[in-house]
Amino acid sequence: MSKEIRIQCLVPDLPAPADTLPYLEEMYSNRWYSNFGPLVRRFESDILSFLQEHNGAQDCFVGTFSSATTALELVLKAIHLPKGSRVLVPALTFPATALAVLNVGMIPVLADVAPESWELTPEIAENALSEKAISVVMPVAAFGKPVDSAGWAAFQQKTGVPVVLDAAAALGQQDILGELIYCFSLHATKPFGVGEGGLLVTGNEDLVIETKSLSNFGFQGPAGVVREIGTNAKFGEYYAAVGLAQIGRWQEVMDRRTAVLDQYKAGLHRAGNSVSLQQGTGNFIPAVFPVYAKGRAKALEEKLADAGIHTRRWYLPPLYEHPGLKGMEGVVNLEPASFPVCEDLKESLLGLPFHGFLTAEDTAEISNIVAEETA
Amino acid sequence: MSKEIRIQCLVPDLPAPADTLPYLEEMYSNRWYSNFGPLVRRFESDILSFLQEHNGAQDCFVGTFSSATTALELVLKAIHLPKGSRVLVPALTFPATALAVLNVGMIPVLADVAPESWELTPEIAENALSEKAISVVMPVAAFGKPVDSAGWAAFQQKTGVPVVLDAAAALGQQDILGELIYCFSLHATKPFGVGEGGLLVTGNEDLVIETKSLSNFGFQGPAGVVREIGTNAKFGEYYAAVGLAQIGRWQEVMDRRTAVLDQYKAGLHRAGNSVSLQQGTGNFIPAVFPVYAKGRAKALEEKLADAGIHTRRWYLPPLYEHPGLKGMEGVVNLEPASFPVCEDLKESLLGLPFHGFLTAEDTAEISNIVAEETA
Repeated sequence: MSKEIRIQCLVPDLPAPADTLPYLEEMYSNRWYSNFGPLVRRFESDILSFLQEHNGAQDCFVGTFSSATTALELVLKAIHLPKGSRVLVPALTFPATALAVLNVGMIPVLADVAPESWELTPEIAENALSEKAISVVMPVAAFGKPVDSAGWAAFQQKTGVPVVLDAAAALGQQDILGELIYCFSLHATKPFGVGEGGLLVTGNEDLVIETKSLSNFGFQGPAGVVREIGTNAKFGEYYAAVGLAQIGRWQEVMDRRTAVLDQYKAGLHRAGNSVSLQQGTGNFIPAVFPVYAKGRAKALEEKLADAGIHTRRWYLPPLYEHPGLKGMEGVVNLEPASFPVCEDLKESLLGLPFHGFLTAEDTAEISNIVAEETA
Repeated sequence: MSKEIRIQCLVPDLPAPADTLPYLEEMYSNRWYSNFGPLVRRFESDILSFLQEHNGAQDCFVGTFSSATTALELVLKAIHLPKGSRVLVPALTFPATALAVLNVGMIPVLADVAPESWELTPEIAENALSEKAISVVMPVAAFGKPVDSAGWAAFQQKTGVPVVLDAAAALGQQDILGELIYCFSLHATKPFGVGEGGLLVTGNEDLVIETKSLSNFGFQGPAGVVREIGTNAKFGEYYAAVGLAQIGRWQEVMDRRTAVLDQYKAGLHRAGNSVSLQQGTGNFIPAVFPVYAKGRAKALEEKLADAGIHTRRWYLPPLYEHPGLKGMEGVVNLEPASFPVCEDLKESLLGLPFHGFLTAEDTAEISNIVAEETA
């Protein structure tokens, strides 16, 4: 039996009630709580300015949704491909990537990921296109690592296959090009968290308008008439209030997370080559913090649990091992042997605690255990 | 052109920030914002006690969702009928009733409604069963009028066809029998509003557990493994906080609404037989307030708009007139002539302002205009 948890793996970093209270007073005075109200409109405007300040996003438009999953589902609907169209997704991701595809009647085609970056790359996707008729590619910002926007824009240009990016965990760090389609999560566990929510960002204004309409039952125009088969996936005023407060806290949140990463890098140095981080870590601050220790994930997990340290096997098992994900295909097939990188990562990745409330003592203790166990 | 609106048709009646603040402080201290957190669990427990105090609901279980629409979608999934199964729904309802059916790959079959109660009745459903292979019946608590639970339980018993009740607008007034399945809305515009949210209530605990799992990506069991194709339709801690405050305000909300209905009944008396209310009004307090004035809805709407009074054509047009609702069937066909009651109501129902902030002067003014215009 594991000990009681002393160090949590993930602790959300959201505004205090005092920070949201002015917005809540405004919402109460408006008596408008959902359905594209004044706070949602202001958040959409302010988050677009934020993205333009930090991440490019020139000539882009944004829409808010109940979650990144529903944003992905509805934008896949809004691009109007036939049922049964194939969508390439990495086998290593949070299951929502594939669920969104299945929920709109399309077929997820699983690809293996790259060994150092743990993500689906344009090169892997190009190879997949030569094997299978793929209608959409849906790369994932794995563990919060921003996707290669320029690379994907070039891929889309070259192949003509649209790219929809599941950048769920990368809001604020993901550079944004208007020719691509990005879905971000605002879930509490993300660095930019509000509770529940999703954000669509793209340069195609009509696509944003249509996807938003699908989030409001498919109503379009002044007559309250259903133009398309939508659902209720609206982002409410309260979450917009938290989002507005969160924009003001972003630098502070990132400073805390940067400090934790720096502490880890120093502490894990002792482990030498036996532990490695995701490619490029430090150029971005991860959303969650899996480290690679070849074949040692389980032993490390147990060792840390014995010390009261909570870890997570983020994105594991790979999608092909979830018994409920029926109706998927592989680029070749769904046999584990077709996913050699995922099979290795399955035994080797462990998500260490990573959040803004970790102390230098916490990260030192964790790093020491990791270094000892992997030595 | 209509004048500026002086009297709103619907104004949400939600708790002030001060009423939710203690819960928000608790949420902040928990640092738990979604994913079946402590406030959601407490709200589910307290709303069940509330329902048991007011509405029966013996031996029932509840689950919370992002909306009533998603609750309907997911419970339809959880009852595991084949794709293409036919679901009987009234042609006069908010479009979400049919959208939920379409979104899970089933076929809405539209029935006409009863002339006095404006709802789908067990009698209409029995006739429909003799015309068509219907797998589920989905009656609607029309405009907030509670459905006839005993009648539907008898129907289900007699025919063997499961009944899933879209009781979206009737929370707090709908009597609940454990053998049926009820979905309620907690949208801001409902008498029991929290912002966005839905509630599933039934005596089948396994069904609640499975539907909740579907709202959390189909995860089941401790391993974080997808067992079924779910989505993200979770109810967050903030909405639970508002719900907990709203339980404490329920009597006060209903007292305000009851007073408004009483004023209207007195005021509309002058209109005599030319204006009628939904059958049973007064035995329940409506969620919205359509009145029937044969063939006069449009003229009345314009007259009231000229006086700065906002009205709504709730549930109109009927479902068969929405261009985006493709893939539906009728009990006979989708021709307007097959829906004589809906065709009459289309020209005759107008939703008058109805909310707790109307003054006696407001209702008197509205009633006078209605009486004059229909005299």
